[in-house]
Amino acid sequence: MNMRLDATHAPTLRSWVTGANDPGGDFPIQNLPLGCFRRPGESARIGIAIGPHLLDLAACAGAGLLDDALATVVTAPTLNAVLALGRPALSRLRAQASALLAADAPARPELLVAQEAVELLLPAQVGDYSDGYASIEHATNVGRLFRPDNPLLPNYKHLPIAYHGRASSLVASGTPVRRPWGQRCSGEGPPEFAPSMMLDYELELGALIGPGNALGAPVPLASAEAQIAGLCLVNDWSARDIQRWEYQPLGPFLSKSFQTSLGPWLVTLDALAPFRVPARPRAPDDPPLLPYLDDAADRAGGGFAITVEASLCSAQMRAGGMPPLRLSRASFAGMYWTLAQLVAHQTSNGCNLRPGDLIASGTISGPTPGSQGCLLELTHSGSVPLELPTGEQRRALADGDELTLRAWCEREGFARIGFGSCKGVVLATDRAV
Amino acid sequence: MNMRLDATHAPTLRSWVTGANDPGGDFPIQNLPLGCFRRPGESARIGIAIGPHLLDLAACAGAGLLDDALATVVTAPTLNAVLALGRPALSRLRAQASALLAADAPARPELLVAQEAVELLLPAQVGDYSDGYASIEHATNVGRLFRPDNPLLPNYKHLPIAYHGRASSLVASGTPVRRPWGQRCSGEGPPEFAPSMMLDYELELGALIGPGNALGAPVPLASAEAQIAGLCLVNDWSARDIQRWEYQPLGPFLSKSFQTSLGPWLVTLDALAPFRVPARPRAPDDPPLLPYLDDAADRAGGGFAITVEASLCSAQMRAGGMPPLRLSRASFAGMYWTLAQLVAHQTSNGCNLRPGDLIASGTISGPTPGSQGCLLELTHSGSVPLELPTGEQRRALADGDELTLRAWCEREGFARIGFGSCKGVVLATDRAV
Repeated sequence: MNMRLDATHAPTLRSWVTGANDPGGDFPIQNLPLGCFRRPGESARIGIAIGPHLLDLAACAGAGLLDDALATVVTAPTLNAVLALGRPALSRLRAQASALLAADAPARPELLVAQEAVELLLPAQVGDYSDGYASIEHATNVGRLFRPDNPLLPNYKHLPIAYHGRASSLVASGTPVRRPWGQRCSGEGPPEFAPSMMLDYELELGALIGPGNALGAPVPLASAEAQIAGLCLVNDWSARDIQRWEYQPLGPFLSKSFQTSLGPWLVTLDALAPFRVPARPRAPDDPPLLPYLDDAADRAGGGFAITVEASLCSAQMRAGGMPPLRLSRASFAGMYWTLAQLVAHQTSNGCNLRPGDLIASGTISGPTPGSQGCLLELTHSGSVPLELPTGEQRRALADGDELTLRAWCEREGFARIGFGSCKGVVLATDRAV
Repeated sequence: MNMRLDATHAPTLRSWVTGANDPGGDFPIQNLPLGCFRRPGESARIGIAIGPHLLDLAACAGAGLLDDALATVVTAPTLNAVLALGRPALSRLRAQASALLAADAPARPELLVAQEAVELLLPAQVGDYSDGYASIEHATNVGRLFRPDNPLLPNYKHLPIAYHGRASSLVASGTPVRRPWGQRCSGEGPPEFAPSMMLDYELELGALIGPGNALGAPVPLASAEAQIAGLCLVNDWSARDIQRWEYQPLGPFLSKSFQTSLGPWLVTLDALAPFRVPARPRAPDDPPLLPYLDDAADRAGGGFAITVEASLCSAQMRAGGMPPLRLSRASFAGMYWTLAQLVAHQTSNGCNLRPGDLIASGTISGPTPGSQGCLLELTHSGSVPLELPTGEQRRALADGDELTLRAWCEREGFARIGFGSCKGVVLATDRAV
């Protein structure tokens, strides 16, 4: 298992930052995720979450607190230049930030910004966004709805299926999602162009890439994780009625491209090191892997024990002061394909990745009731509605619904770390056609 | 028909530039396509093709020969900032360049660079690349090979099918294409990971976008062409064996993402104005269009009479001094869907386009023998090989083959204009798996 632990992971480590040591928080000193933020009226900057604050990295560089190579890249408005330096630089940044924030270091409150005082932005400028299909439970459940006679296609266990998504419509957490219009066709009569009636979320994690590879130079599986800077939350909002009508033969297009929301925090692979687990074992009757997708280290430690969760709060629930209702909870450790396999496969034809590219996992679903990562699965394509505490029913997302994704890691003997949240509220779209 | 002609289109107009007035050339003064170039050892600049030369636009701005708004954007290394200004700015640039280059203007050879002395680059930095499927002949021919019982899917005549491609692997004309490795599966036995044996070209045109639209603000069909700066050649290299195995259910991925080649020249919609034709009439039994895809002006003039051609020259042909063999010739006027319909559809869900985004047409095929725009169609998926003048046979592209795309417009009473060429030679990829 690639569990390279060092002093930054010590569970006893504490920070001088107020609120950073509260149990159950997402951002103790053992986490140190990277993100981008903007103070009102100022330009974008990059920072590291610590408790309810963030460490302003340009301010750290200005005070001479980072090494020279880091100091030249942390003044940029996005993480791309940091990602381009690769994982060794991220490890140095982690070590330097940990030393700065540790309880035995002098308190430097002038380097902090309250998270609630700033706007959290997309962590990187994403050049290309691709999305996987790495949960075999999701693929099987969705396959059964779209192709009852043929749920899991013959290629599924041989290669990590993925598709290209739209980079322009990636938005930061908190951006409302406008209900898309599109063509839908019931099969009886001609299609109509109307607001989607089957708006859905997809609970995912995504890898942000750095340093990238040259065109024509595939990334072997054994070094694929050197290309993964870390993970963030991804909600790949989907319009199922549009998808069902458009997806043959070239895949989903407008059913996805209206918006994809990213969580604000990039949790580095270093921070995730204590939570590495073996890749999901392949079943005895699964076909053998081709060599470019098979690696002993990936089998031994290619998984991540990350709990992911989606919850919903309708407008009526919010008006009544009710808490969100949990819809989905699953473990990322159950994915059929590892992130490293997604990277190795995506570059196996020579395709180049650039710093800041996003490779998302696809919907994270598990085998048990309530572990499915989207409403399509949870409601059996709308045939079994969910009941909300208000008595409202949901076969798909309604206008005013707020959807929140969260993810975290917990393990005995280690500090709990989290990904923050990825939120979006559904807005009606009125439009003269 | 949107045939707004002005003095820049006059067939009698001539230029002081040597070679620009030669009949049959691609770049008379009536064309003035935009591109990016680099002198050896210098940084990238933007220019306008004129005969065998190009007009250095930064030099024009430096000499005070362009209006202020243009002068501030033509010093950039790509066309993106010019595209962001939208079509009115492109029209002004055309008018000002035409006046500078006209035979009655003073010769300014210091503003010219010989095309053969520079490297021609990608015309823009493409944020998102999407690719259509707009030729019904192509969709039918390919559908028959992949799904003999179901060639044209029920959605085809209702919406312009498209998919997201990979932006990182877009390359300039002249870049060799490395034969990709990938999974292929004959259906008997397990898949293997090996070099693609069915490497193909796809003869396409693509629209470069400007100025773009905001997320959530669809572009109505009636104003879609205001978002199309112009067209360039696109070769969407495809590995058919990889495609056949991977494309279900999420569409083509690694079969396309190893490389896509762009021609160097953006021929503006202004330059194409004399060659506007009605959109292909829908057949009497075609279903009616939904209103968002139906517009009288688009029906009357949404087509372009552009001849497109692909030719092949094998290594043996080049060694023997033989000319390339024409494989495909078709008219872009025969496309089932117009470019404006592609733009209106792609944004109909609220998806945003950014300046420099690329929307390609999909393979351009016609109904007659020799008008099919890829080898998959021409050889019936390899079952009917093509014979080259050397006696060599081709079921797919072989190592050493050079593929060249060209496109041009000719019409009685107007100057012929062309797109230059988009070339690539196939390289073998040796690799330790």
